Amino acid sequence: MPMVCLSDFEAYAKKHLPKTTWDFFAAGADECCTRDGNLLAYRRIHFRPRILRGMSVIDTRTMLLGTEISFPVGIAPTGFHRLAWPDGEKSTARAAEAMKTCYITSTYSTCTVEEIAAAAPNGFRWFQLYIHRNRALSEGLVRRVEAAGFQGLVLTADLPYPGKRRDDIRNSFQLPPHMTKDLGLISCTEYGLPPNSIDPSVNWNDIYWLQSLTRLPIIVKGILTKEDADLAVRHGVQGIIVSNHGGRQLDGGPATVSGKPQSEFHGNITLMQ
Amino acid sequence: MPMVCLSDFEAYAKKHLPKTTWDFFAAGADECCTRDGNLLAYRRIHFRPRILRGMSVIDTRTMLLGTEISFPVGIAPTGFHRLAWPDGEKSTARAAEAMKTCYITSTYSTCTVEEIAAAAPNGFRWFQLYIHRNRALSEGLVRRVEAAGFQGLVLTADLPYPGKRRDDIRNSFQLPPHMTKDLGLISCTEYGLPPNSIDPSVNWNDIYWLQSLTRLPIIVKGILTKEDADLAVRHGVQGIIVSNHGGRQLDGGPATVSGKPQSEFHGNITLMQ
Amino acid sequence: MPMVCLSDFEAYAKKHLPKTTWDFFAAGADECCTRDGNLLAYRRIHFRPRILRGMSVIDTRTMLLGTEISFPVGIAPTGFHRLAWPDGEKSTARAAEAMKTCYITSTYSTCTVEEIAAAAPNGFRWFQLYIHRNRALSEGLVRRVEAAGFQGLVLTADLPYPGKRRDDIRNSFQLPPHMTKDLGLISCTEYGLPPNSIDPSVNWNDIYWLQSLTRLPIIVKGILTKEDADLAVRHGVQGIIVSNHGGRQLDGGPATVSGKPQSEFHGNITLMQ
Amino acid sequence: MPMVCLSDFEAYAKKHLPKTTWDFFAAGADECCTRDGNLLAYRRIHFRPRILRGMSVIDTRTMLLGTEISFPVGIAPTGFHRLAWPDGEKSTARAAEAMKTCYITSTYSTCTVEEIAAAAPNGFRWFQLYIHRNRALSEGLVRRVEAAGFQGLVLTADLPYPGKRRDDIRNSFQLPPHMTKDLGLISCTEYGLPPNSIDPSVNWNDIYWLQSLTRLPIIVKGILTKEDADLAVRHGVQGIIVSNHGGRQLDGGPATVSGKPQSEFHGNITLMQ
Repeated sequence: MPMVCLSDFEAYAKKHLPKTTWDFFAAGADECCTRDGNLLAYRRIHFRPRILRGMSVIDTRTMLLGTEISFPVGIAPTGFHRLAWPDGEKSTARAAEAMKTCYITSTYSTCTVEEIAAAAPNGFRWFQLYIHRNRALSEGLVRRVEAAGFQGLVLTADLPYPGKRRDDIRNSFQLPPHMTKDLGLISCTEYGLPPNSIDPSVNWNDIYWLQSLTRLPIIVKGILTKEDADLAVRHGVQGIIVSNHGGRQLDGGPATVSGKPQSEFHGNITLMQ
Repeated sequence: MPMVCLSDFEAYAKKHLPKTTWDFFAAGADECCTRDGNLLAYRRIHFRPRILRGMSVIDTRTMLLGTEISFPVGIAPTGFHRLAWPDGEKSTARAAEAMKTCYITSTYSTCTVEEIAAAAPNGFRWFQLYIHRNRALSEGLVRRVEAAGFQGLVLTADLPYPGKRRDDIRNSFQLPPHMTKDLGLISCTEYGLPPNSIDPSVNWNDIYWLQSLTRLPIIVKGILTKEDADLAVRHGVQGIIVSNHGGRQLDGGPATVSGKPQSEFHGNITLMQ
Repeated sequence: MPMVCLSDFEAYAKKHLPKTTWDFFAAGADECCTRDGNLLAYRRIHFRPRILRGMSVIDTRTMLLGTEISFPVGIAPTGFHRLAWPDGEKSTARAAEAMKTCYITSTYSTCTVEEIAAAAPNGFRWFQLYIHRNRALSEGLVRRVEAAGFQGLVLTADLPYPGKRRDDIRNSFQLPPHMTKDLGLISCTEYGLPPNSIDPSVNWNDIYWLQSLTRLPIIVKGILTKEDADLAVRHGVQGIIVSNHGGRQLDGGPATVSGKPQSEFHGNITLMQ
Repeated sequence: MPMVCLSDFEAYAKKHLPKTTWDFFAAGADECCTRDGNLLAYRRIHFRPRILRGMSVIDTRTMLLGTEISFPVGIAPTGFHRLAWPDGEKSTARAAEAMKTCYITSTYSTCTVEEIAAAAPNGFRWFQLYIHRNRALSEGLVRRVEAAGFQGLVLTADLPYPGKRRDDIRNSFQLPPHMTKDLGLISCTEYGLPPNSIDPSVNWNDIYWLQSLTRLPIIVKGILTKEDADLAVRHGVQGIIVSNHGGRQLDGGPATVSGKPQSEFHGNITLMQ
């Protein structure tokens, strides 16, 4: 069967991956209302097509924090790519480089940042960061990421505590030992290594701490309200990402695409969704 | 299979209980529109998540009529727990005590109030009361409940006549004889003992009668309109419970959680939902 | 299986009637959107329950054009009852008499008006009339109906041409010959006898003609707009019935219960739905 | 089984056509949201039935750019009729002639315009045109169409690039060679002949070019906004057709029947939908 759309890849993955792995990738938190609502929300948004406008030249290029990307869609951070493919995040990095768009590499990558950078040396990459209880660990990550040529830090700000993904619990999901062992990057995760490593006390003042560590642009991910978008501006970050974490952490939140902060929002900031 | 959510317990119960018992617990009145609407209404309510607020300390404790509970959810009155578990309401009482929240014991309990109180001597408990045609019976219940250390009386006010639960009729549902026999508490119910024991003439003046019997706080359950919430205040009750009786008595009413009395309501009163 | 609700009777009928007969009774016009919408519309209407109002006496009696009925629901005109039960409309008449409500007997009855009247001599009955191309036929019906003691004439006004009920066409639905033969009342129907008997030219002036034939109250059935309700008042009829003919004739009309004429309507007239 | 409605013909076609052919006729672009929305939108539009208005004479005739048609529905342009029936568009032309309505013949017809005209010499026909990169080809078509007696040119204006119909890709859909060979009319299509023949640079100025070629009325098809309807008037076309191309080219557009341009639109122009 030729692969003609994302649904075809999804069906292929569901058929070929171990159930536990598929469940991990597909899971939403709790009853998956928010995960499912993310997709349904797109159906309520309609194009308003105009005609006869001369479409022989179509240019979808845009600028993202000073870097040109070939079309206004990037790759959001997701973890554990080696569960799906031996090459893991190295393949993802190569694809993003080939398509000339931004790849936000997850902290929960199963390749090291150095491997990822080497796999696609000309790629445009940001790194997705959690602030850990062990601040030295986070600081070390920032240093390595800078050294590896990443061009931005995406702080995931909506996860003081991880969500309850029912199938992961039923499946006792965890990384295979050889992957955990290989993880040069992450030495503390919920999966395989000491749990509770993410610091739930993180607040807006920690933005200043992060800014003191690095000159990379900081993008705050997980914003769903105008108030928090305003706070992001006031704390001097360079961008925000409107996101409900794919509905994987908190069930019951609004669909990302129907969130309203952008409509009332103004400020010197790049907004992605 | 591990039990990770309420749906898992529900599936377990459906599998292991006799059909007649399951149907009784699951039933809504008539076409079950209101029962089903109760659940659907929650899906239309979204969190509005804020981020980076420092969540290392989470305190869900709250006060309920002067008593501290560990989180703002209690156990609503439901009958016949021994149909599902030999220990019946004694187990429920122990669970509520362990979780430090309020257990509203049903008149249709299959353990006596004395047994329930003895099972969880430090538990926080209210008693759910109907006003019977035989007022002496209701008065006797109030006396026993006070003596057993219950801390509130919840008057169910939305049941002048019982609803039509189709499966209960089809199944000729009734309590097993040995349970009816054991009921020290309830000597008159629709199930097993003389029917029509609840007095349909009950009205707001009966609140004064109830107040004359007891110094326990009185909470009126079954309110769905602002007008009735106002009347509750004017009649000096200590709390109201917004409820459509789980959709088990009147089909066609609004979902409990979408009821509007609370938004327009003010008064010196505790409101639960 | 005990019959506890209308759905149970519906399932019983579907199981025991010949498919052609069931299809005829169940049919809506074309895609059945209006038929199905009639039911769905009820689910969008909620009770607004009040409590503690003293319900020991419940009185659902009401007056319908000067006659008391025991509750505000009557039996709408439907045809061919003998297809479902040997006694046909005689049984229906007896049921309505026993329940003390109004039975609107259809022109397409499979018992004569005299038989129906004899079966339930104390019943409250109206007769549903079409105006035929052969006016003498309609006039004859009016005379017989008056003589048989019917107390009102319901003029069906929404059927200049019959609807397209797909299953009836697929099934080549028609009355069994012995029923057509027996029809003392109807000598011209779409089913079995000369088609096209209903006069599509009927208009408001024909109300005057009908009034000249009889002193029975005239009720116009099939009104769905305020404008037509106003016209009904101006033409001196005694009542209207808001109806979309059960969605059996025109598909695409509004649900009967969501029609709005009543809300803006005033006049000396009885309104049923 | 008698054919009593369009759904019956649809089911018959699905059963008897090769899957690849059925998929081509039934396909919408991408996820088919717009195709399906086109049908659902009709269910949200209700008749507002009036009664007793004298319907013995019903006249559905109307004028379409100076020509009388027997009812206000025509045949939209669709391609490749010989895939479904040996006689192809000749049969369609005969049907339209018999019903006295307008048949818009597709550029992607599998009979030549001369064959189609000869099959129904008294039929009322327009021709649906694309503007090709090879302008001489389009000009040649206009000449032949004029000579064959077509009475209007329908310019399809919503297709700078063809849509992605997933099943066509999965099926590797293409015309059978003998049909491509027979196509006297179309020598350049996406199917069988050089792809990319449609000119994506087409814009409103090309209307003037088209007007310079012919005195036939020009109708622009594919308008979904008030702005484009206004532009059509300003460019002197004789009519517009509100259309989303059956949802076959762009998924995510509004339903044709719920488009709003007509309500705010005024001008000397004929509007079809």
